[in-house]
Amino acid sequence: MPNPTAAMLVIGDEILSGRTRDSNMNHLAQALTEHGIDLREARMISDDHAGIVRHVRELSGSHDHLFTSGGIGPTHDDITAEAVAEAMGAACGIRDDARAILQAHYDRSGQELNEARLRMARIPDGASLIENPVSAAPGFTLGNVHVMAGVPTIFEAMLEGLLPTLTGGAPMISASLRVERGEGDIAASLSDLAVAHPEVSIGSYPFTRNGLHGSNVVVRSQDEAAVETVMGKMRALFPEAK
Amino acid sequence: MPNPTAAMLVIGDEILSGRTRDSNMNHLAQALTEHGIDLREARMISDDHAGIVRHVRELSGSHDHLFTSGGIGPTHDDITAEAVAEAMGAACGIRDDARAILQAHYDRSGQELNEARLRMARIPDGASLIENPVSAAPGFTLGNVHVMAGVPTIFEAMLEGLLPTLTGGAPMISASLRVERGEGDIAASLSDLAVAHPEVSIGSYPFTRNGLHGSNVVVRSQDEAAVETVMGKMRALFPEAK
Repeated sequence: MPNPTAAMLVIGDEILSGRTRDSNMNHLAQALTEHGIDLREARMISDDHAGIVRHVRELSGSHDHLFTSGGIGPTHDDITAEAVAEAMGAACGIRDDARAILQAHYDRSGQELNEARLRMARIPDGASLIENPVSAAPGFTLGNVHVMAGVPTIFEAMLEGLLPTLTGGAPMISASLRVERGEGDIAASLSDLAVAHPEVSIGSYPFTRNGLHGSNVVVRSQDEAAVETVMGKMRALFPEAK
Repeated sequence: MPNPTAAMLVIGDEILSGRTRDSNMNHLAQALTEHGIDLREARMISDDHAGIVRHVRELSGSHDHLFTSGGIGPTHDDITAEAVAEAMGAACGIRDDARAILQAHYDRSGQELNEARLRMARIPDGASLIENPVSAAPGFTLGNVHVMAGVPTIFEAMLEGLLPTLTGGAPMISASLRVERGEGDIAASLSDLAVAHPEVSIGSYPFTRNGLHGSNVVVRSQDEAAVETVMGKMRALFPEAK
């Protein structure tokens, strides 16, 4: 059975202006690979209501899961919850369960649950909450859309709670070989191997270190025996490789 | 006049598996912001011919420029050139000008221009070449699509040559203030400012350092005077900020 598929939406003007370097996509990619869910596409988009609605509809309709990061804080530019709700045809307002979580958190810290902070209790009807062990304000799952915070520590903590609840497939097995020859020297052999072994994917990633040109060759498949067979052939082809 | 718009396609299975962390998107975002071109969207996609064709059509049709990174090396998984050519309705084959550049490069280094390396001379008909001062194999511009390498040093060198040839608009001016208060405390004031000054965009980015909750507030506009006006009001609102 093929693995479940996923897409990601990274939401935030600060990513597209270059001010902030996104790290959530790479973190999600690694976690999904381990869990046996295939990340097929990621999009970085701006804090624009109509744009978020359109992309959520496109990507949630064409994948088993859509993960989003960003735009669920207390400020005026945090508009993800309403946009996801609209995309999925749900109403969105302050929800009592989310408000209670925030109230308890701010009571503990002696801060006021003011109108701005209360924005973080806006959760679409029918959504289930995703726990935020860092700063309380929850994410949520609505249909197949998982809405999480943009701050990396919070995103990662939310994902850690969410992922075990999602059904994964066979995790991808990968092995790699560092060949100290340029890609152009080994490309023909790799191409022959790829044709002979369609059950694995073979990727080649060039590097230059201390003036030396080399290639990291990565073999990936859900079939561990197939990876080992191809790795054996590669070691025979490139006996000097490590 | 509004600035030209742009989108980016980051092409490569290794990005979506989490094996490689993309840095080209952030580099492009910063360079375009300085040059006065608005990056509206970025997509990370896999090495799949039909997918690349579809995304190139969608994004080149809806933006003034599309920048791509990845998939133009010598190995079997480097399929970007043909896919971009198909998306734009151009033929693609070994071109003499690109072959001459590669021949001269490998003659200098005493290496053979073998069949695999010759794949890097596949350039669509009608495309202009983008110089590669690092490893010779050129990128290309076809219509409004700029095709560059995935290796960051090469991507950055290609962009440095390409960008001055593209018409930019007014660069975005930004200023920021570090407020040592949580977002929830300052959100209402920021929202009022945003409503009063639609000519600027105001973003708030929370941070936690040494247990201290704070917010970096960023004001952005092409109008430098407007940025200064809003920054003055913010300094009055948050006199303790830096």
